[in-house]
Order: sequence, then C-alpha cells, then structure tokens
Amino acid sequence: MPHVEEHLKSSDFITDVVIGMSDGLTVPFALAAGMSSAIADTGIITTAGIAEIIAGSIAMGLGGFLAGKTEQEHYASELKREYREVEEVPETEKEEIKEIFAAYGLSASSQTLIVEELSKDKDKWVEFMMRYELGLEEPHANRATRSALTIGLSYVVGGIIPLLPYFFTHSAANGLKVSASVTILCLFVFGFFKAKVTGQPLLSGALKVTITGALAAAAAYLVAHWISG
Amino acid sequence: MPHVEEHLKSSDFITDVVIGMSDGLTVPFALAAGMSSAIADTGIITTAGIAEIIAGSIAMGLGGFLAGKTEQEHYASELKREYREVEEVPETEKEEIKEIFAAYGLSASSQTLIVEELSKDKDKWVEFMMRYELGLEEPHANRATRSALTIGLSYVVGGIIPLLPYFFTHSAANGLKVSASVTILCLFVFGFFKAKVTGQPLLSGALKVTITGALAAAAAYLVAHWISG
Repeated sequence: MPHVEEHLKSSDFITDVVIGMSDGLTVPFALAAGMSSAIADTGIITTAGIAEIIAGSIAMGLGGFLAGKTEQEHYASELKREYREVEEVPETEKEEIKEIFAAYGLSASSQTLIVEELSKDKDKWVEFMMRYELGLEEPHANRATRSALTIGLSYVVGGIIPLLPYFFTHSAANGLKVSASVTILCLFVFGFFKAKVTGQPLLSGALKVTITGALAAAAAYLVAHWISG
Repeated sequence: MPHVEEHLKSSDFITDVVIGMSDGLTVPFALAAGMSSAIADTGIITTAGIAEIIAGSIAMGLGGFLAGKTEQEHYASELKREYREVEEVPETEKEEIKEIFAAYGLSASSQTLIVEELSKDKDKWVEFMMRYELGLEEPHANRATRSALTIGLSYVVGGIIPLLPYFFTHSAANGLKVSASVTILCLFVFGFFKAKVTGQPLLSGALKVTITGALAAAAAYLVAHWISG
C-alpha cells in the first residue's frame, strides 16, 4: 500500500514534534508538581525543571541519534553477511526461502519455483532475505538522526510549558495551580494529535496521554510531600 | 532463524531490566548534577531526584503499558479487516500478493501459482497478508505490559544509584563527586550489558550509554549554573 507509506512519510516531522512535545509535557510537569509539595521557592523549582529538560532532551535526542546509527550499522553488516552467504552457501539460503513458504502451506514444487526465480537476481534475492527472513527494512540514512533530534527539541518546547507559570509567581502553590490547568489541557490537545498522527483512536489516545501525565504528577506530588513531611 | 528468536525471547526480561536501568541512571544523574551547581542543600536535590524518578518511571512504565495495549488493539482490528477483505474482495487481495512478488522479479505464472496455493487456507493467507503486506507481527498478549512495567521499575532502581550519595552528605559538591564517579562506572557497566542483550558491538555500545549520560549531566550542570548565577 504505497499511498499509506507516502502519507506516513509526509507527516514524519509532525509525528516527531507531537511525540516529543507530549512526552516533554509529562515529566517536567510531574517533577515541578512533586517539588511544589515540598519546596515553596519557585526559583528552585524552575532550576530543577530546566535541569530536567536539558537532561531529558539530551538523553532522548542523543540516545535516539546513537540508536539510529546503531540500526544503520546493524543493517549494513547484516546486508554484507547476506551477500556473502548467497555467494558462499547458496543452497542453504535457498533452503531458508523454501522454509518461509513451507510454513504457509505452499507445495514443494512451488517452493522450488519461487527459489529458482528469486535467485536469478542476486540483489533482489538478498533484498528478499533481508526483509522476509530477517525482518529488516533499510533504515532511511538520515531519518533516525533527524527524528531523534526533532523529538529531543520538541521535548524542550513541551517541557517549558508546565514550567512557565512558576517563573511568574513566588508561590509554588499558585504556580502548580496554573501549571496543572495549562498542562492537562495541553496534554489532552497533544495527546489528540499524537493519536491522530500515529493512527490511534483519537479520544482514547488523548486520554491515555492526559492520564499518564496526571498520574505521574499526582504520584510525584504525594511521594515528595510524604518524604519531605 | 528460530534459534535467534528463541535466544532473544529468553532474555527479554534481562533486556528490559538493563534498558530501564541504563535509562534510569541517565536522567536522575543529570538532574542531580545540574541542581548541584545551583543549590547547596542536598535535601532539595534528593527530593527533586525522587520526584523525577517517580515521574519518569510512571511516564515510561504507564506510557509503555498503554502503547502496548494500543499495539494489540491495532493488530486485532487489522486482523479483522484482513479477514473481511479476504472474504469480500478476494481478487483485490490476490492482486496485492502478486504485487509483492512482482517487485522481486517473479514471473506472472509463478505469482499466480503462489496466490492459488496460498489462498487455499484462509488463516495462512491472512497471516501472510498481515506479515508481508502490512508488516505486522502478532504482539505477545502480556509481553508489552510486562516489558513496560519491568522497564519502569528498573528505571526506579537505576535512578536511585546516582541519588544515593546525596543522602549521605550535606554538601552538594561532595555528593556530586561521588555520584558522578559511581554513575559513570555504572553507565559503562549497564551500557555494556545493554549492548550485549540488544546485540550491539560491546565497547561502542557501552561508550554510547556512558557518553550520553555524561553529556546530559555536564549540560545540565552548566546551564543550571549559568541561570542561577
């Protein structure tokens, strides 16, 4: 279904932005909420919040970037190995193709026919093995890197939203009230778009993001209150 | 290659523990390091750290749990649709199979033969469409849930390691020294195991985790120092 793929590709950037933002809203929001229950000084809360945003976005962005690199290296080394195997042990590789189709109930003669035709073109043969034997698809060269950086940066933007109210008040309690109202609303909106761009049911998708954020904040609040009191 | 799959499955739990722990080490470590540059009171740092660990583990655990549920629902609904399509528009579905094999250079007669044999057994036909047309594999019923909870809990355990030193000193600077030494060491060890269980090159995998953690902490430290000073 090439149309669907096309569609997904065109919204990759938006998907990454929405994922990064809805994740970014969650943890800094919960951290600030938790600290509000134990610490009155909003200056400390914003410092902690900014440290968290930097830490989280680097872990997410750089972590994703390195994972993307690893995926590319893995694909390249498996591709090399498959080419070598097709060259050195073609009969073994042919048996592996037969096994794939045997599992779907195809007759021995059909299996042989497929193998004979497929093995005529070495590139297509290897491509087939990569995809259907190993389940590997060629990673887009810069896609993983761009995706990781987009998610990391969107995490920063998302994380600033729940923190902003604390910059405009000296009372942590007031900051929390505004932060919770704004963030719950944003979690719902971004959860809605996250569901839309990742193809989930909209309302339940929006609620999942909202509930995760609210529960994380409530739990952080209660535990921080308990240990500090 | 059933052996490889077997191998991966048997270490799923360990993989999740190692992933959760190496991620858990990163953000709380960087958060505490960042706060150490701006705040002298270790009580505040540990409160913030605990709030972060709770927030992060819920976001990761609950987020992963809900994502797993979504994946299961998605698979179930696509499976239902594929069964309906095979029933209602079998010719269209047969054409789709032919297209898959046409792309690998198989002749029209082979395509027809494959389709005829494959479509004899409706279950195997649908299974084939799910896997090779849609690229979907059946999610393990409780696997995603268990995985998310294991990662979330391991995040807690990993997060406690960089925080512990701050409990035993009143000086944030001393806490940071011990925390950084212990955590960098742990990041390397868990990064090594993460590489091992996820099948990456060991040394570069270990270094990736270590460098991500160290950079996140350094960046959080510098920015928190700059905004507070």
